[in-house]
Amino acid sequence: MAQPLRLGIAGLGTVGTGVVKIIRRQADLLEKRTGRRIEITAVSARDANKDRGVSLSSYAWETDPVALAKREDVDIFVELMGGSEGSAKDATEAALAAGKDVVTANKALLAIHGQALAERAEASGHVIRFEAAVAGGIPVIKALTEGLAGNQITRVMGVMNGTCNYILTRMEADGLGYNALFEEAGRLGYLEADPNLDVGGIDAGHKLALLASIAFGTKPNFEDVVLEGIQRISLDDIHQAADMGFRIKLLGVARRTARGLEQRMQPCLVPAHSPLGQLEGGTNMVVIEGDAVEQIVLRGPGAGEGPTASAVVGDICDLARGLRISTFGQPATTLEAAQPARTGLPAPYYLRMALLDKPGALAKVAAILGDAGVSIDRMRQYGHSDAKAPVLIVTHKTTRAALDDALDAFDQTDVIAGQPVALRIEEV
Amino acid sequence: MAQPLRLGIAGLGTVGTGVVKIIRRQADLLEKRTGRRIEITAVSARDANKDRGVSLSSYAWETDPVALAKREDVDIFVELMGGSEGSAKDATEAALAAGKDVVTANKALLAIHGQALAERAEASGHVIRFEAAVAGGIPVIKALTEGLAGNQITRVMGVMNGTCNYILTRMEADGLGYNALFEEAGRLGYLEADPNLDVGGIDAGHKLALLASIAFGTKPNFEDVVLEGIQRISLDDIHQAADMGFRIKLLGVARRTARGLEQRMQPCLVPAHSPLGQLEGGTNMVVIEGDAVEQIVLRGPGAGEGPTASAVVGDICDLARGLRISTFGQPATTLEAAQPARTGLPAPYYLRMALLDKPGALAKVAAILGDAGVSIDRMRQYGHSDAKAPVLIVTHKTTRAALDDALDAFDQTDVIAGQPVALRIEEV
Repeated sequence: MAQPLRLGIAGLGTVGTGVVKIIRRQADLLEKRTGRRIEITAVSARDANKDRGVSLSSYAWETDPVALAKREDVDIFVELMGGSEGSAKDATEAALAAGKDVVTANKALLAIHGQALAERAEASGHVIRFEAAVAGGIPVIKALTEGLAGNQITRVMGVMNGTCNYILTRMEADGLGYNALFEEAGRLGYLEADPNLDVGGIDAGHKLALLASIAFGTKPNFEDVVLEGIQRISLDDIHQAADMGFRIKLLGVARRTARGLEQRMQPCLVPAHSPLGQLEGGTNMVVIEGDAVEQIVLRGPGAGEGPTASAVVGDICDLARGLRISTFGQPATTLEAAQPARTGLPAPYYLRMALLDKPGALAKVAAILGDAGVSIDRMRQYGHSDAKAPVLIVTHKTTRAALDDALDAFDQTDVIAGQPVALRIEEV
Repeated sequence: MAQPLRLGIAGLGTVGTGVVKIIRRQADLLEKRTGRRIEITAVSARDANKDRGVSLSSYAWETDPVALAKREDVDIFVELMGGSEGSAKDATEAALAAGKDVVTANKALLAIHGQALAERAEASGHVIRFEAAVAGGIPVIKALTEGLAGNQITRVMGVMNGTCNYILTRMEADGLGYNALFEEAGRLGYLEADPNLDVGGIDAGHKLALLASIAFGTKPNFEDVVLEGIQRISLDDIHQAADMGFRIKLLGVARRTARGLEQRMQPCLVPAHSPLGQLEGGTNMVVIEGDAVEQIVLRGPGAGEGPTASAVVGDICDLARGLRISTFGQPATTLEAAQPARTGLPAPYYLRMALLDKPGALAKVAAILGDAGVSIDRMRQYGHSDAKAPVLIVTHKTTRAALDDALDAFDQTDVIAGQPVALRIEEV
């Protein structure tokens, strides 16, 4: 019989506790499947006395995750603390230096330091697995890295922040405004300590950077992800989009074009009857397009104790089975530094702005768009309670650069109140 | 640099040709990802002279796939001939005997002989991979075997025959009858040589048996799959189901219950707004439910040159990377022989029958159901052009056994023309 595989788990929040529960509950099943006994030898967390609903008494307790990472009786360091700096980074580096494999759910750490960590791991023949870092329980890293390895990937898209999708779908379903639902999400514990990680698109942007790296063989590069949050989406936008057969989603898109690597995480309009448009509530969805496979859609819970722990344990089972693979699907030293393509391929855009009550205001808006080379598919001005008249415009396909020219020109006029909302209509 | 990995490909139909194209087109990409050069050394097919749109002149040609399987310059035998007996089986056995790994797209071979083949392969440390055998381009075998290895799987469901789903969705969309669409599917080349493999549910049943084996750690057992085709589904059924918010799908369901292993491939009603209900055309979908992950939905093309070849090449890449795993996710000798649970858990049923124009006919039907212990949720008799009055009944949750009692009793009466249609309403 093979030696047991010994885990050291750092971080006993929701996910860490979930992992402990699975390892205990399914010990025999996991051994049958992987051929090795999987055991927890040591754990570490901030509070040793908290009741986590599962007995930890048979595990060694370390107060310092770095000490845990270095323990001789640990084969795999399981990092479930989170955060791109500090303890999580220190302990992960310590684990690699001590010759351990690492399994992590930490999207921020890998999106920002993934290249350096992967190079370090691979230099000594160790691996970092991070299925749980992207789209919770959905085995998307595995699908992209392994299952679709025969494909030149052409586009990866995803709705990967459940909180944002929850807010956007509740806005439509219940007619509640963004602010009310943001507050509710906070009360329900759906928001990160820094809510901008969720509603600002940062968390989902981290995930997109990781998918893009695997898909296109490029160094993970979160800095070049174009980020836009959902904070400015109004009920009006939701309803106008619905009227035209669309839904608004915080959608990540990564694509490699002749102009460079495009990585965007921003609210987009998608057809209401597409799989992405039909996605409701906190569920995640990733769409992968490749030259051979055409289109694969993966859907599942993006967070929560069970689903995220499922992904962590899947990685652990891979290691127990001896499945060892480069962190980003090919040796980290062979990943390219892709030029960022700052703007996407041309697309139609949805524009909403508040027109001041001045003669010729609408004509001025139309003229500015025309001058920027943006042609109008539909335009609609509709009644509203206050003095400003909302105007809705759907453009024909245009580049973001041309649209930005028009938005800049709007800024110089005296006919528009505030900043227009401009949302890409993504072909899915 | 590692030695090249040498393929012998038997069968150069749609899928085989697709695999050759990918291996040629993506040689550098595959080497970068897997660390090994992947080369084709020999091929075999019935007709050496057919133009397949790709040059085969640099490969050795074998007329006998068994000879191909034994070649010393072949590391992986890629079986893309199909069929559960004959050449495909002989050549696969020869390859295993000669110490090769096997990659196959052959669902029939594995559903029927998978246990014996897996035992033979594993006894000598070789592996059989078959991602392409189930749901075409969707990496569902990998998701279930590896990604979700931490889960006790509770249910696997799937729409896995694109031709049936194409027929059923066209019936609803275009108001065409089953027979017209069956003929059209034949003309378009969507049907197997023996169309009963498609519309009788056999092909999809093979796939279900393979998924059930991995999900529940049981020997693949196609014989005990309860099979029912779509041939008796009428436009009436499609429209009545739609009126009630359902769609009819040829749905495979595998579940392990206290009464044994349930494997069913039969037309069912599913909610129109569920992912399964929304699935249109030839696309496939597999839903996997586990104790930790809750529910994962995978969607993608179930057939075609590119998607199926993508799955075959994914398996080849796994082997090039040294990822080696038991055929059904755990050693074949540890798979259990599951007792079949002949009927599913209780469910509501949809019944349609043609009532003869006799006094008290409807009362007789209601009485028979009551005597069998089947209670009625809704019943509706509606006008029709011929003398027989169609009656639609939706039952409350009932066992299949009770329903079968009622169906048997209907047979004994003189008030019903022909056989009633009885479709399970599946909770999804």
